[in-house]
Amino acid sequence: MLEEAITRIEDLDYESMERAQRRLDNLTKPRGSLGMLEQLAVQMAGITRNPRPKLGKKVSVVMAADHGVVAEGVSAFPQEVTPQMVVNFLNGGAAINVLSRHAGAEVVCVDVGVAVDLDAPGLKVRKVKYGTDNFACGPAMTREEAVRAIEVGIDVAYELIEKGASIFAIGEMGIGNTTPSSAIVALYSGRPLDEVVGRGTGIGEDRVPVKKNAIERGIKINKPDVKDPIDVVSKVGGLEIAGMAGCMLGAASRRIPVVVDGFISSAAALIASKIEPKATNYMIGSHLSQEPGHKIALDLIGLKPLMHLDMRLGEGTGAVLAFNLIEAALRILDEMATFEDAGVSTEIA
Amino acid sequence: MLEEAITRIEDLDYESMERAQRRLDNLTKPRGSLGMLEQLAVQMAGITRNPRPKLGKKVSVVMAADHGVVAEGVSAFPQEVTPQMVVNFLNGGAAINVLSRHAGAEVVCVDVGVAVDLDAPGLKVRKVKYGTDNFACGPAMTREEAVRAIEVGIDVAYELIEKGASIFAIGEMGIGNTTPSSAIVALYSGRPLDEVVGRGTGIGEDRVPVKKNAIERGIKINKPDVKDPIDVVSKVGGLEIAGMAGCMLGAASRRIPVVVDGFISSAAALIASKIEPKATNYMIGSHLSQEPGHKIALDLIGLKPLMHLDMRLGEGTGAVLAFNLIEAALRILDEMATFEDAGVSTEIA
Repeated sequence: MLEEAITRIEDLDYESMERAQRRLDNLTKPRGSLGMLEQLAVQMAGITRNPRPKLGKKVSVVMAADHGVVAEGVSAFPQEVTPQMVVNFLNGGAAINVLSRHAGAEVVCVDVGVAVDLDAPGLKVRKVKYGTDNFACGPAMTREEAVRAIEVGIDVAYELIEKGASIFAIGEMGIGNTTPSSAIVALYSGRPLDEVVGRGTGIGEDRVPVKKNAIERGIKINKPDVKDPIDVVSKVGGLEIAGMAGCMLGAASRRIPVVVDGFISSAAALIASKIEPKATNYMIGSHLSQEPGHKIALDLIGLKPLMHLDMRLGEGTGAVLAFNLIEAALRILDEMATFEDAGVSTEIA
Repeated sequence: MLEEAITRIEDLDYESMERAQRRLDNLTKPRGSLGMLEQLAVQMAGITRNPRPKLGKKVSVVMAADHGVVAEGVSAFPQEVTPQMVVNFLNGGAAINVLSRHAGAEVVCVDVGVAVDLDAPGLKVRKVKYGTDNFACGPAMTREEAVRAIEVGIDVAYELIEKGASIFAIGEMGIGNTTPSSAIVALYSGRPLDEVVGRGTGIGEDRVPVKKNAIERGIKINKPDVKDPIDVVSKVGGLEIAGMAGCMLGAASRRIPVVVDGFISSAAALIASKIEPKATNYMIGSHLSQEPGHKIALDLIGLKPLMHLDMRLGEGTGAVLAFNLIEAALRILDEMATFEDAGVSTEIA
């Protein structure tokens, strides 16, 4: 399934992009003056093979899983918060629910590896494992488990696309998950841990060294092979990170755009981009978070954040806010008057 | 009228802000993790004196005027584009129209000093003067004209608030208007012209020195007194810049928030903040544009842009995009579950 998805990921449709760009250049504004809105419109044209695309059904996918590395004391919240927040998502009380309602998006929550059994109505239970093992002491999961988690993501993407999803915000919930994300970004960037390890959802400055130490030990003991992204995600990653990467690959293989959220979502996008570089064609950056490694991860993938909101929540909250900007970009392309229509003079030669 | 508006501008309501902050701290997310969305919600509580405010009618105000300094060759577009674009605004074909429809906002266009007569249906004709004089050779307008333009803005704000406006995006149209804006920002920042003069809507790099030279001569010949912001705006400013500053002061005096747009809107906000510093309480930053002086202007006022979209269009296009984020912030404050409601554990002590 993973192989099939990868081979189906294609280039953008350059003809639709050129037609969209030509139209943008004739609209009543200086060329390029709508900046990233114009780039978004052109990318969406290339993704959808339509020079004047519209957005259909919007879906926020929240992948949830637990992390054995919390045993090292890397998080400010107890692990029981993961399942508690899953219930909160299903009841509509979390930030991602509020912001998805605001954006007109549906929330779909997937248990890809929460440490306890959960069977709440509406939850997609696709548990690969009851949380990862502590990667500071050995591999987080086996290679087979990592592939299964990726395939959960692909499968969920396919299912939702079949039901009409036209764009995804890719978010997560998993107490402790900035730690594996920092490990992934450290490995691919080659940057020192000081630059890629932050306070996550809010540990004290004094706990940051504990987090760094766990990552250092994890990398040393597991020797992840950066040439093999599945090896990386299995050894120092997370089940929801693998699931999100899968969701991104599945969407790309069906020409559906994915909006990347914060640090964890970006670590997943990095894994997806290493599995198949063309997947980045279908990715859209959303916001720049407080987490110091976020910009490093986005730069590695080649994504530019639209918003700078100093957020550090995850769940897909930044990604879902970007839906409005993407829709704005498509409306600009579709609805603005051209210089000719409006009788407006163009630039002085 | 200006004096009356200034004296009525009050502090934010700290009690409502504290109550909003208390609620935010109890919602199911790490404290402060929604970053600027939380700050927006708290500011809106302080502005409206309501710990759980809602947004009512949204209005994009576009102030239009012409600039004598275009005689120096500072713009890529001919001056006739100002009235042509005003007609485009009234016909609904410009970017601000599309983005305002997307945001559910009304567009109100004000002729505060277009160089030709315009009497299109829907236009608020409040012309103070047929464009400014060329400030490179003498004052752009008299002090009386500057005060009248500011009072046009105050009056328009009052009128719209009376009809139910609950928030404004403050934009503009005026061929040549990055030139006076650069002059204003240079004067208040003390920064060299190299740092505050850019390519505007798109002049070639070779024309930038022409623009700098015009500003240099304008500052030298007019000797604007930075202690007297009305002197500054009359000597090197623009009629729409004065009008926008007035609109911001008028809104602040009625406790109505204003969203500041790009470089020109920020130059106007700078003038308003120098006339009455408390007016900044009611200002919200929206985006960071391509114009190099924009960040300098925002820093001087103390505003942080929510979006980084590389735009350079004006009209209020960045400001109106921020409405969605402000509404998102208010929905977070209003709709999210608390830790207690949702049975979610709080931070480890």
